[in-house]
Amino acid sequence: MPVSPIDWDDGTIRLLDQTLLPEETVWLNIKDIHELAEAIKMLRVRGAPAIGIAAALGVAMAANNFKDHDITSFYDHLDTVIDTLARTRPTAVNLFWALDRMRTVLSEVSVKTVEEHCQRLLAQALAIQADDRATCRIMGKYGAALLSDSPTVLTHCNAGGLATGDYGTALGVFYAAQEMGKTIRVYADETRPLLQGSRLTAWELMQANIDVVVLPDSAAGMLLASGRIEAVFTGADRIAGNGDVANKIGTYPLAVLAKRHQVPFYVVAPVSTFDLSLASGEAIPIEERHGDEVVNGFGRRTGPKGVKVFNPAFDVSPAELITAIITEHGVIRPPFTPGLAAAAERSLWKQVDDGLP
Amino acid sequence: MPVSPIDWDDGTIRLLDQTLLPEETVWLNIKDIHELAEAIKMLRVRGAPAIGIAAALGVAMAANNFKDHDITSFYDHLDTVIDTLARTRPTAVNLFWALDRMRTVLSEVSVKTVEEHCQRLLAQALAIQADDRATCRIMGKYGAALLSDSPTVLTHCNAGGLATGDYGTALGVFYAAQEMGKTIRVYADETRPLLQGSRLTAWELMQANIDVVVLPDSAAGMLLASGRIEAVFTGADRIAGNGDVANKIGTYPLAVLAKRHQVPFYVVAPVSTFDLSLASGEAIPIEERHGDEVVNGFGRRTGPKGVKVFNPAFDVSPAELITAIITEHGVIRPPFTPGLAAAAERSLWKQVDDGLP
Repeated sequence: MPVSPIDWDDGTIRLLDQTLLPEETVWLNIKDIHELAEAIKMLRVRGAPAIGIAAALGVAMAANNFKDHDITSFYDHLDTVIDTLARTRPTAVNLFWALDRMRTVLSEVSVKTVEEHCQRLLAQALAIQADDRATCRIMGKYGAALLSDSPTVLTHCNAGGLATGDYGTALGVFYAAQEMGKTIRVYADETRPLLQGSRLTAWELMQANIDVVVLPDSAAGMLLASGRIEAVFTGADRIAGNGDVANKIGTYPLAVLAKRHQVPFYVVAPVSTFDLSLASGEAIPIEERHGDEVVNGFGRRTGPKGVKVFNPAFDVSPAELITAIITEHGVIRPPFTPGLAAAAERSLWKQVDDGLP
Repeated sequence: MPVSPIDWDDGTIRLLDQTLLPEETVWLNIKDIHELAEAIKMLRVRGAPAIGIAAALGVAMAANNFKDHDITSFYDHLDTVIDTLARTRPTAVNLFWALDRMRTVLSEVSVKTVEEHCQRLLAQALAIQADDRATCRIMGKYGAALLSDSPTVLTHCNAGGLATGDYGTALGVFYAAQEMGKTIRVYADETRPLLQGSRLTAWELMQANIDVVVLPDSAAGMLLASGRIEAVFTGADRIAGNGDVANKIGTYPLAVLAKRHQVPFYVVAPVSTFDLSLASGEAIPIEERHGDEVVNGFGRRTGPKGVKVFNPAFDVSPAELITAIITEHGVIRPPFTPGLAAAAERSLWKQVDDGLP
């Protein structure tokens, strides 16, 4: 299990710069909301749950930085802050989910002072972080129970500790399997263009002494055809009401290939990744990023100057290709619509039980 | 249409170093067989037909370099040369096909002197090159006839002029379409790990004023799902008797995705790429290359030190996924076995007609 990629540090946010891994381990000390927005946009912090945690801590930090006692200006300021954070990245819904929770705390009418708001916002942000850490461990156990004693699995991008509070969604399953005494081998797609698989997943798993093999994304077809893979596990950036899953670009081809070779395809994601307001994946906004990530990403230019580039950051895997969605409330199998709705409702009741707003 | 990537130059071989494109255009002057073997292994020259041409010119060069008149030592020397070239790369069958043709010329019993052998070997090598140039133009016309007036197509790796005598197999279709007055847009997979798509295909097509868009290999699934692609065209490194096709890693996932979205999947390859001695693609040897190509390829390390890597250079697309194989003798459609055999026989008769051995 890797270090926690993001933490509250006495009014600032301590954040591991994931763009520099695995060569350099550089911790940033984020002091204002513009630094944080830049870090999210540039993928210094990335992964749907981690973006949610970062945004929540960002709102708490901005509240903390507000050096006035006028409550009206405080509300105006935080509106701008939440708006700035909401415009960093469009696809991962955990960002909007976390900002909504912070806004709900902020709307508590019984709270009258800036100071008390600050305390409550920080408590909420830390609760989101703690909840993610617990949630990932529960999902890990549900997922690991689906595996044999010596499984060989495939994953895409980084759905690990670095993408969450500290444990991971898809990779949480592998950590849980290891904790159960299983001997696991993980094939990790390198995940173009930003190589979160070879840079982050391989690094995390090697730190945890889990056997890992990196491969080009395009080699996963041959690997799945070989019969060596017991199951595919990925995270998710947004899950629509029918079970369609938006995740890192390249997930859809994997899901198609897994289906063809009858390899189970599991998505591991907490309820905060659900967007039940969307009937299907077609409505999920897909972020398109700069072409330089593809042709000028790693030290050397790899495409002609001026070449056009198509660089979508995510794709959508239709529900029919997904064997199960593993959540903190259990494993949801098709048809997904009732299972997703039930899990979402349980999360709502859990919040009430916890006394969370 | 790009420059010819390989040419005979007064006893030496002039070769464009494709590992340095698109940033640098460096021409190598290859003087001996060890330099040539290194250039083939390191992919300074690559692409199944180009490897065949390079090997044939290599045998002619080695014969030319032989400074003795003893015919027995000459035969021994060329045996070693052919053996050295045959061990450079295992998958592309055009290499073995070209070396076989050179060996056949060498076995001509009526030839008694080293000098005459040298002349005949060079004539054969230049004929292989000229034949490839003509063949690609014929295939291009057959392929282009399958396209609409303003097609948007997808290709993988570089099956262009750089991979052949000067015109290309898959890209030959696009050049032919342009010559017919069609307005073509080409999506080019970047093709990890060595990025022949973004480095070579994009460069070639831009030089030819063909509209080209580079994308990560993993984005092709989303692109095919979008309905924007009229057809997929790739080259081949070896085609088995039943129509199974070995080609650059990542071709198989494309073929699966094209089938799913009912997009025609065309393979463009001359008869020299056929290996009818193999009943199916399972018997095709697949080259596995060094892991550094994946995690240490372009100026910056992109995986942890010591990480294991799975780096197969090719995969096999089963015949059932292929719409048609476009050859110099026409377009072969399923069932492929009789069509491939008929095309191979026509090539045999053509050789006899041409007076070639």
